[in-house]
Amino acid sequence: MRAAVLRNNALVFEEVAIPEPGSGEVLVRTAACGICGSDLHVMTHTQELADALHRSDAPFRLNPARDLVMGHEFCGEIVDYGPNTAKKLKPGTRVCSMPFLIRADGLRFIGYSDETPGAYGEYMRLTESLLLEVPNGILPAHAALTEPMAVGVHAVEKACLDKNDVPLVIGCGPIGLAVIAALNLKGIHPIVAADFSKRRRQLAEVMGADVVVDPDTNSPHQTWKESAVWRGSDAPALPPWIPGPPLRPCVIFECVGVPSILDQIVTLAPANARIVVVGICMGRDSIEPVIAINKELNIQFVICYTADEFAATLRNIAEGNLRVEDLITGKTPPEFLSEAFEALRSPEVHAKIMVEFSN
Amino acid sequence: MRAAVLRNNALVFEEVAIPEPGSGEVLVRTAACGICGSDLHVMTHTQELADALHRSDAPFRLNPARDLVMGHEFCGEIVDYGPNTAKKLKPGTRVCSMPFLIRADGLRFIGYSDETPGAYGEYMRLTESLLLEVPNGILPAHAALTEPMAVGVHAVEKACLDKNDVPLVIGCGPIGLAVIAALNLKGIHPIVAADFSKRRRQLAEVMGADVVVDPDTNSPHQTWKESAVWRGSDAPALPPWIPGPPLRPCVIFECVGVPSILDQIVTLAPANARIVVVGICMGRDSIEPVIAINKELNIQFVICYTADEFAATLRNIAEGNLRVEDLITGKTPPEFLSEAFEALRSPEVHAKIMVEFSN
Repeated sequence: MRAAVLRNNALVFEEVAIPEPGSGEVLVRTAACGICGSDLHVMTHTQELADALHRSDAPFRLNPARDLVMGHEFCGEIVDYGPNTAKKLKPGTRVCSMPFLIRADGLRFIGYSDETPGAYGEYMRLTESLLLEVPNGILPAHAALTEPMAVGVHAVEKACLDKNDVPLVIGCGPIGLAVIAALNLKGIHPIVAADFSKRRRQLAEVMGADVVVDPDTNSPHQTWKESAVWRGSDAPALPPWIPGPPLRPCVIFECVGVPSILDQIVTLAPANARIVVVGICMGRDSIEPVIAINKELNIQFVICYTADEFAATLRNIAEGNLRVEDLITGKTPPEFLSEAFEALRSPEVHAKIMVEFSN
Repeated sequence: MRAAVLRNNALVFEEVAIPEPGSGEVLVRTAACGICGSDLHVMTHTQELADALHRSDAPFRLNPARDLVMGHEFCGEIVDYGPNTAKKLKPGTRVCSMPFLIRADGLRFIGYSDETPGAYGEYMRLTESLLLEVPNGILPAHAALTEPMAVGVHAVEKACLDKNDVPLVIGCGPIGLAVIAALNLKGIHPIVAADFSKRRRQLAEVMGADVVVDPDTNSPHQTWKESAVWRGSDAPALPPWIPGPPLRPCVIFECVGVPSILDQIVTLAPANARIVVVGICMGRDSIEPVIAINKELNIQFVICYTADEFAATLRNIAEGNLRVEDLITGKTPPEFLSEAFEALRSPEVHAKIMVEFSN
């Protein structure tokens, strides 16, 4: 089969063996796969990811010396079944799945495992019990966005939002946009969102942001303050030594994932803010604990989603509650994946580029 | 009056002016004041504290170029009242107070303010509305421990513990011991506690720790795992790829407050652990975010207490629910404060040294 292979921190497009579905597994032909920002990270930081997985006792491992077929935001069609499968869905059925392969000896993260190919290859094996049928009429490229949108849905769930909370989304790449869409779906407003890119600020508004801010011209934290003034009779009384006006509780979503962003947020966040770290920052990062202590900040790190959140996200995409078509700013056949990775480094043009396999 | 003054990162004992109580304020003669680990930090890091207060938008400031009389864990006797006071308590009444002076133009942190002396001086001014009468028969040295014990009570409250949570207390200095006492008061067991010092591990057991561990010979995190095995019929089922046995939820209290401890905890904590940072780490500190992300850790930074927690802590000390006498491992007159600071650097001897003013 054709596949884009990560080898020595570079992508090469070549023929590799079609995977064999094992017990309880299904062979699926890839229809569409989104390019995730994490893939760009991993291409240049393979060894660091392997080290971090090892040190953090994650339930899967990665050997950076071996070939890796990435791709974990996918939709495909059932081709064949392995042994010990119930075969409830007919071959040709379009399916999504959380990108995990469940095996007796442990989990594989499809797209970051060197033992099973991800969706930058023409065929994948998936675990039958995780398959979700894609409702009729939904484009594969839209169904493939279930994965990144579920990341936003999960981050918002983990934030345990109250109706009075006012969110500030830092970074409007695909994950920031997914968070905004999930906040909007939950009816949490106003949503304040910040990004240096005009294009991404426009997309933030499309996804449901009420106030967008360019950090080059205005402080996102100051803009948040202006948007979070507590009006009406339920505004709490402030002690005399805290300058008014009273502000609603602050929940900051860190969706950038590069060193020093968390430090900036810790320094600028208001007292008692909750920070949800959704961006994946590789390498070390430093903060000044005494600042976080003085403000009693809370930092919740999040990743992935639950099976229920993933299924609900596909349903919400199918029903039009989560609009995803505007996120797709480009499409590419798999042989140009390397060029697409390059193109994604320019935020003025692209949010999500979709890899599409022709039949 | 006599006072131990912090000047140019050194303590000098000398005569200074008796403070004048302002509107709503009371003049109090210090009876006892505990030496807090933060004071040792501040003696050597005055400028860093001032910078951090400034950058974190704290409601009070510190000018490291000015003389500072520290001391914020105190009990005293009312001497005189300033203007605009209700004068409900007679002169001679023993009182405690949260170490804040509330003024029209803002708050002062008694002990870390260069505008009003703390309890390493013979007299202080306190805000009348914050005074708590010390019940009869309670020694000033015990009442003075309300402040550090309330820090432990607050940290445990902010942890929002469930009956199934199993706490791991890292560091059994006075704050770790206060956390252990507060956990014990709430009936949360087993309590696992770690410290390199045998003396402190003994005190941890006295305060209510069920399992103590010396990190030189055993991993605190491994010991926690052995103590947190979920037994009985309410143990949750684990997915097949997670090696058993099932463990109860983990809440780690960081009570050391030096760089690299948070990083160690983030690296070794089990998935979904909540980390409560009670130790005050000055300067910068780094973690590896991807490890915290992979495990969906939560970090809650805490400081101080609420007025209700402070009052309840004094009540619990008075009623014998919080045993504090064993914490006091030494006493000193104020003129030997500098030597007492030195002595506190040896954890095999001391937990809390109490400064006592003779009449």
